[in-house]
Amino acid sequence: MKRIAFLLVAVAALAGVVASLALASRHADDQAAPIFGVTIPPGYRDWKLIAVAQLLVPGKADQLRAQFGNDIAIKAFKEGKVPFPDGAIIAAIHWTRVPSEGNNKVLAGPFPGAQSFVVGSGVNVQFMVKDSKKYAATGGWGFADFKDGKPGSKELHETCFPCHAPVKDRDFVFTRYAP
Amino acid sequence: MKRIAFLLVAVAALAGVVASLALASRHADDQAAPIFGVTIPPGYRDWKLIAVAQLLVPGKADQLRAQFGNDIAIKAFKEGKVPFPDGAIIAAIHWTRVPSEGNNKVLAGPFPGAQSFVVGSGVNVQFMVKDSKKYAATGGWGFADFKDGKPGSKELHETCFPCHAPVKDRDFVFTRYAP
Repeated sequence: MKRIAFLLVAVAALAGVVASLALASRHADDQAAPIFGVTIPPGYRDWKLIAVAQLLVPGKADQLRAQFGNDIAIKAFKEGKVPFPDGAIIAAIHWTRVPSEGNNKVLAGPFPGAQSFVVGSGVNVQFMVKDSKKYAATGGWGFADFKDGKPGSKELHETCFPCHAPVKDRDFVFTRYAP
Repeated sequence: MKRIAFLLVAVAALAGVVASLALASRHADDQAAPIFGVTIPPGYRDWKLIAVAQLLVPGKADQLRAQFGNDIAIKAFKEGKVPFPDGAIIAAIHWTRVPSEGNNKVLAGPFPGAQSFVVGSGVNVQFMVKDSKKYAATGGWGFADFKDGKPGSKELHETCFPCHAPVKDRDFVFTRYAP
């Protein structure tokens, strides 16, 4: 009887693990951005770097940023070719910018007045996915913005393409490949 | 006779190409940093990103920075393990930080007062190479600093380890892995 009770508990625990794994996986993979249906591409944090940048909007945003490309995007950047081919994906990670007191203390010796800033926490991640047919109405790009793994609102995603429109001559991509 | 002359010219041209290729390759690969003998590791620009940072030394430096790791270094960073294993290499690219007038113009609409900064030109690249036996006297790390592919002076390289010494508890590595 004890053995059956143990077995039942074990089965229940296992079912719980399976259910939460399924939920976690659904949470991470299945939440698509509105309008464009873009989901978070797996492994983007390990993609090759396109460039880094900084954005300061007084009182609103103080960020360090990095843009990454999948292999199709990186090849196009290196060749300097536009438009980007279908399948190209550009990822951008935005972090808070924070002063590093530790670094500043060390740097103060050799470099008086030095101010070191490092990344704090993640703010959001953004993606541009090239599919010239599917996204013909928005320059061939699907746009997506995620905070903590959750996509932003429809209203937010309606602002993506109009903002990128001015750089049509660079196929709607602001970022240039860093030397 | 014409054909032989053509052949001779072609051979001479080919020899010239081979010679300059050899020279170019020597220039890029063989210039080792003083003290540590570290050369520029091929392909580091395409390594995975560790983090990004900013350094401001008023009147001296205004930079955006990115740190990259080879696979051994990235694995150690992700596992949060110190000391780093032998074979780990960390690369840092430092660029000038420049305002992007183009981005600012676009951003001014939705984000009044926004200041966008992007990378300008490359300033220098630095490397830390882990070899606990070869570099036992400097925490197991060999250091190198290159400008335009040329290593800095012996005096410059003498400053590397003393500057990194304060972060001994992080195996002499300032950079933390960005989320």
